Amino acid sequence: MKPETFRTYGHALVDWIAHYRERLPELSVWSHVSPGAIRAQLPLDPPEEPESFEAVLADLEQIILPGLSHWQHPRFFGYFPANAALASVLGDMVSTGLGQLGLNWQSSPALTELEEQMTEWMRRLLGLSDGWRGVIQDTASTSTLVALICARERMTSHGATRGGLQAEELPLTVYCSGQSHSSVEKAALLAGFGRDNLRPIATDAAHALRPEVLVEAIQRDLAEGRRPCAVVATIGSTATTAVDPLEAMVAICREYGLWLHVDAAMAGSAMILPECRWMWQGVEQADSLVLNPHKWLGVAFDCSLYYVRDPQHLIQVMSTNPSYLQTSADGIVTNYRDWGLPLGRRFRALKLWFLLRLEGAAALRERLRRDLALAQWLAAQIDATEGWVRLNPVHLQTVCVRHEPPGLADDALDRHTLDWIGRLNASGVAYLTPAVLDGRWMARISLGAELTTQEDVAHLWQAMCAEVST
Amino acid sequence: MKPETFRTYGHALVDWIAHYRERLPELSVWSHVSPGAIRAQLPLDPPEEPESFEAVLADLEQIILPGLSHWQHPRFFGYFPANAALASVLGDMVSTGLGQLGLNWQSSPALTELEEQMTEWMRRLLGLSDGWRGVIQDTASTSTLVALICARERMTSHGATRGGLQAEELPLTVYCSGQSHSSVEKAALLAGFGRDNLRPIATDAAHALRPEVLVEAIQRDLAEGRRPCAVVATIGSTATTAVDPLEAMVAICREYGLWLHVDAAMAGSAMILPECRWMWQGVEQADSLVLNPHKWLGVAFDCSLYYVRDPQHLIQVMSTNPSYLQTSADGIVTNYRDWGLPLGRRFRALKLWFLLRLEGAAALRERLRRDLALAQWLAAQIDATEGWVRLNPVHLQTVCVRHEPPGLADDALDRHTLDWIGRLNASGVAYLTPAVLDGRWMARISLGAELTTQEDVAHLWQAMCAEVST
Ligand SMILES: Cc1ncc(COP(=O)(O)O)c(C=O)c1O
Ligand SMILES: Cc1ncc(COP(=O)(O)O)c(C=O)c1O
Repeated sequence: MKPETFRTYGHALVDWIAHYRERLPELSVWSHVSPGAIRAQLPLDPPEEPESFEAVLADLEQIILPGLSHWQHPRFFGYFPANAALASVLGDMVSTGLGQLGLNWQSSPALTELEEQMTEWMRRLLGLSDGWRGVIQDTASTSTLVALICARERMTSHGATRGGLQAEELPLTVYCSGQSHSSVEKAALLAGFGRDNLRPIATDAAHALRPEVLVEAIQRDLAEGRRPCAVVATIGSTATTAVDPLEAMVAICREYGLWLHVDAAMAGSAMILPECRWMWQGVEQADSLVLNPHKWLGVAFDCSLYYVRDPQHLIQVMSTNPSYLQTSADGIVTNYRDWGLPLGRRFRALKLWFLLRLEGAAALRERLRRDLALAQWLAAQIDATEGWVRLNPVHLQTVCVRHEPPGLADDALDRHTLDWIGRLNASGVAYLTPAVLDGRWMARISLGAELTTQEDVAHLWQAMCAEVST
Repeated sequence: MKPETFRTYGHALVDWIAHYRERLPELSVWSHVSPGAIRAQLPLDPPEEPESFEAVLADLEQIILPGLSHWQHPRFFGYFPANAALASVLGDMVSTGLGQLGLNWQSSPALTELEEQMTEWMRRLLGLSDGWRGVIQDTASTSTLVALICARERMTSHGATRGGLQAEELPLTVYCSGQSHSSVEKAALLAGFGRDNLRPIATDAAHALRPEVLVEAIQRDLAEGRRPCAVVATIGSTATTAVDPLEAMVAICREYGLWLHVDAAMAGSAMILPECRWMWQGVEQADSLVLNPHKWLGVAFDCSLYYVRDPQHLIQVMSTNPSYLQTSADGIVTNYRDWGLPLGRRFRALKLWFLLRLEGAAALRERLRRDLALAQWLAAQIDATEGWVRLNPVHLQTVCVRHEPPGLADDALDRHTLDWIGRLNASGVAYLTPAVLDGRWMARISLGAELTTQEDVAHLWQAMCAEVST
């Protein structure tokens, strides 16, 4: 395709994207296509000869659009938000258009240095000390896997360069909250620890890890000849945005010499607000930290920030240095390939740069504060209304709730919960995610989509009340 | 940012990207900025208030552009090509603009089903049987890590769900060619095997793995009480595009019950040409396979295709199923989160869809054949010219060469090689990568950038001859 043609089609697609964003409020939040319905409309083979741009655009509208669940919709309250603010979309367009590849500093100095500077900008916005160095990874799942591998290698004095984990005499163990995200268990299994050596620690009434139970577990493992290796603290858990007691966990990790990884995938964005930083008080004593600007902050997916205290250790674990990747600049520059799993890397810093410059830090703080206030408003409605039970302390943007009509309990209550959520989601008016808490289904209302207004939350609350009274 | 504003700025950036592509031939291929020069121009903090779009665009031009090494340049002959064909750039723009997130099928049915269909389209284009199922990963590095973890889990009957790799009595071993990409060693180390249990196998005159040495290594490990687990075959090695003897390796893996992973990161794209398929004859008997359409084929980075014979095994190793990710469609749909490391996933299939439809399969084949012919032309010049020694059989798009003036050997020859390559790269006229082969530096000329013409290759050859005679 010639640049001239790209100009024409590019303009048309920018318009299509703008139009998509404009009409979001009128679309059903959630896709209602049946499994296989999209595929059934696609030919078995790619075309031999070029098709017209018009044909592709038409299929985008007629085949793809009905198969989308609209994460950017103002009444999307599912999972956690995955905002793709239009300013960051612009930055990502440039990234793709430039076709850069970050293999080492030399292969794209701007890619590396903008990433260094953007992780610095974010560090300062988040109120972190200059003892941290950052890198952009794709997801928190990957970052946590990197963290647990680094913990493993510190504990074994780089066993990977010798016999590997399989050469260790005593099993290494990993600790996390029973409310940790599934990616923590996945990372522990992939890194070779084994499920038998992962300890999900019991939580308290606020769904936060109980430090005394953590200590017991560590002591039991020590007594039974295992080697406690790493602790993952969750700041803002997935089910209820619970906050693990970081300072207590720091003290425990210090005492027993354990790696402390902080999973603030969701809540981390809120740390640009000084009034939220109590949640990760103690973070400076952690070894590694992940947060996802691709969630609440508005950076188009994927953009996960991974910060470490000891970049040399990270590099030692992740580095490879074949001749074809060596350059004369090595030693004085940052080669981000040695900071994570993949070799090739996109120019991801551009989307952060565009967002921060075109929106400004003040506007980002304002939007997050808006969402915190909306969550408080919703929590207040729930608390004031008979039949509804709020299930979590609301200090972020997620409200967990159950409608409990008199006389309903156990499985019948679960059925009621899943029924009204199912009806509400099917209506297309709003979308929220059911989840299990302490063995019972509940509704998770996760605010924070960029377009959400007070009216949208009121609309949701109205719909919830209507669904349970039918 | 309002959609209306996005329209205006989006058009301007599409124009900027088009203009960037148009002026590529006039730019120095490689960036000549000094380490730190880009960062020094960026403020320490993000702005509090929004900046103008014009200011950002100006910085893109004045700060970022000089810090780019131009992978899309017609005289880029470094590493392997990382083509970002403009048709695929359009698809990626749509992906970012839609802001979809693939957590499960339900969270974006179109994202999942288009990915299923695009991996099918590619499977058919590549001439693979319908015994394969595919998924898009970010990179070959990640895909190979996934493959080795899957091999580990098959060999240990899912030890990860018990005591992990550390509970295994006898060490598991991994085999690859001594010319394997560094990502294979990295994956083996990260997966916990340990360097002592990785066997880089000696290669023959064509730099391909020697199967009889592989058998010896396996037998020695068995005799010494280790458990051979996985073999990685490289089809198109990074240094010289060497082709490992896949059929012989298949037979060995069958005999000893080993997992066979095929790394065709680069050469895989060429398999859309029937005349190239001899290179991976035997691939149908492998367990897993990776190839990178983000290299030669033209899909904007990142797009790595990972195919497996047994998706159920992959899912069993990678799956997580917390309540908040469960949906009523589970069991009848594909949940790609269980096919790789990350949970959240971009709508990557769009860039493949746009490329294949807007270009058509015939044009992609034609472009690859053009590059094969250009490589043959260059090889012929080298063979016909005194003083130049070609170091690899050229069956793909990479030509390895050394200029060997009479009387120069050993370190002096290395100095000569690095000198002329350094001068050529510094000239900005073209870029190629030095690499070590059998202990001596050489020049790797990797063709295949989309814009490269016969004139560009002739220009390169001229420049090479000029540099060595100064
Ligand atoms: C606390 C927490 N950690 C990790 C993740 C995983 O995020 P990612 O998709 O970036 O891997 C999530 C996702 O919601 C999360 O809530
Ligand atoms: C043979 C081979 N395997 C793997 C890779 C790694 O590719 P990626 O950057 O996608 O991880 C390369 C990169 O050039 C390669 O040549």
